[in-house]
Amino acid sequence: MRVTIVGSGNVATHISAAIKNAGHRIVQVYSRNLQHAALLAYHVGAEAIDDLNALTINTDLFIVSVKDDAVLSMVAQLAIYGKLIAHTSGAVELLPMLEFTQQAGVFYPLQTFSKTSELNFREVPMCIEGANESITKTLEDLARDISNKVYRISSAQRKVLHLAAVFACNFTNHLYGIGEALLKDSGMSFDMLRPLIAETADKIKERSPFTVQTGPAVRNDGTTMAAHLQLLEQQPRLKEIYEVLSQDIIKNHNGVNGDG
Amino acid sequence: MRVTIVGSGNVATHISAAIKNAGHRIVQVYSRNLQHAALLAYHVGAEAIDDLNALTINTDLFIVSVKDDAVLSMVAQLAIYGKLIAHTSGAVELLPMLEFTQQAGVFYPLQTFSKTSELNFREVPMCIEGANESITKTLEDLARDISNKVYRISSAQRKVLHLAAVFACNFTNHLYGIGEALLKDSGMSFDMLRPLIAETADKIKERSPFTVQTGPAVRNDGTTMAAHLQLLEQQPRLKEIYEVLSQDIIKNHNGVNGDG
Repeated sequence: MRVTIVGSGNVATHISAAIKNAGHRIVQVYSRNLQHAALLAYHVGAEAIDDLNALTINTDLFIVSVKDDAVLSMVAQLAIYGKLIAHTSGAVELLPMLEFTQQAGVFYPLQTFSKTSELNFREVPMCIEGANESITKTLEDLARDISNKVYRISSAQRKVLHLAAVFACNFTNHLYGIGEALLKDSGMSFDMLRPLIAETADKIKERSPFTVQTGPAVRNDGTTMAAHLQLLEQQPRLKEIYEVLSQDIIKNHNGVNGDG
Repeated sequence: MRVTIVGSGNVATHISAAIKNAGHRIVQVYSRNLQHAALLAYHVGAEAIDDLNALTINTDLFIVSVKDDAVLSMVAQLAIYGKLIAHTSGAVELLPMLEFTQQAGVFYPLQTFSKTSELNFREVPMCIEGANESITKTLEDLARDISNKVYRISSAQRKVLHLAAVFACNFTNHLYGIGEALLKDSGMSFDMLRPLIAETADKIKERSPFTVQTGPAVRNDGTTMAAHLQLLEQQPRLKEIYEVLSQDIIKNHNGVNGDG
């Protein structure tokens, strides 16, 4: 397949490398910033452009990997070429794309990407949606070439998925950061917490988080929770986070203890 | 060293196996429940007892690994033997132990343990505190026999460490559970989130959580956050968690974006 990449950020970088490594051809990489386009284009053997007028029509698929709020205006500009267009966003629905083209789909990788960290793309869940069965099938086939985990996901489901990812990824990372700050304030290194964080994530690789919940809240250990809140007396925002999450754990588990 | 284990829960199970594997002798395992004591004693080649009167004085160290609120009364009962006593709790201070004995210390492993999951004890941070330098040294030496990560940690620091662990471990696991519940309600499997969770934990193995924060809050993307809150309209507790954590991320990052 001949693929044109529109965008040069973290998602564009990882997805275009995966597609090229699967034997497909990346023909062009577009970015408003020619240097960004050139860097990525160099790695995937494509032409770099910073002008939409320079787009070749000798391609089968535009993959639009730009900021959420820029996706639709980009789709509007690409629609004139009459080619298949798929975006990679977790937050943008399929329906508004159809105002510009019927050749529309979604090619959303559910993962947190950093340009500087390698990851095994075959383990990245690919969420596919198409304007019709033929488009869905085309995108699904391409997704299977780069990942073992391909799902058909509707726009409504994708919104929930994106929300769930915010809880399980963005918010957890923020909690790691709170742990780091607490330790630093008391003269301790974040290294102390790293094995615990790794084990917590490891535990749920094959189990349900509900069944392995530990800590004072799931045991409803009021003495320890009161001591913790006392420590947070001078940090009202952390105190609020502690209270809201502890209350939710207590309510969810309702006396049913998890692992010790 | 000859060691007596008081308790038969998750921590007692893992710590006694590690001590035995390091070439020390577990002489007895005490539990109020003889069957629990017997199961653990069998694995570490010790005698199982359920009566404190049956404790041998032919031991060098009592490791007290019982519920936080039972630690001090157990120390009080063991003090008569005049042996070194160390507890494994993150929440109990050293000072109140000294009311019963000067031969007191803390031997706290900072990890989340499940009886059913193996882990590499050499990577478990061991937090050591002793009533005097000689006791600290004895416990530190034993800790080095079972772990590569041994820290001298005061009672005041240990309280903060325990609190940080609640944020970084117990609360993150609860957020995984929220992700799981959201997906389930929309007919999706938690398997979809697992690679994202693994990568989120993996990222901070060598980096600071602050620098790799992603998501709508760190970008201060009001449109996406409003859409998420809309999805949570019927779930006020989740909405509150979403708002409290997002506001804290916004305030902490204050316009400084993390990784994309």
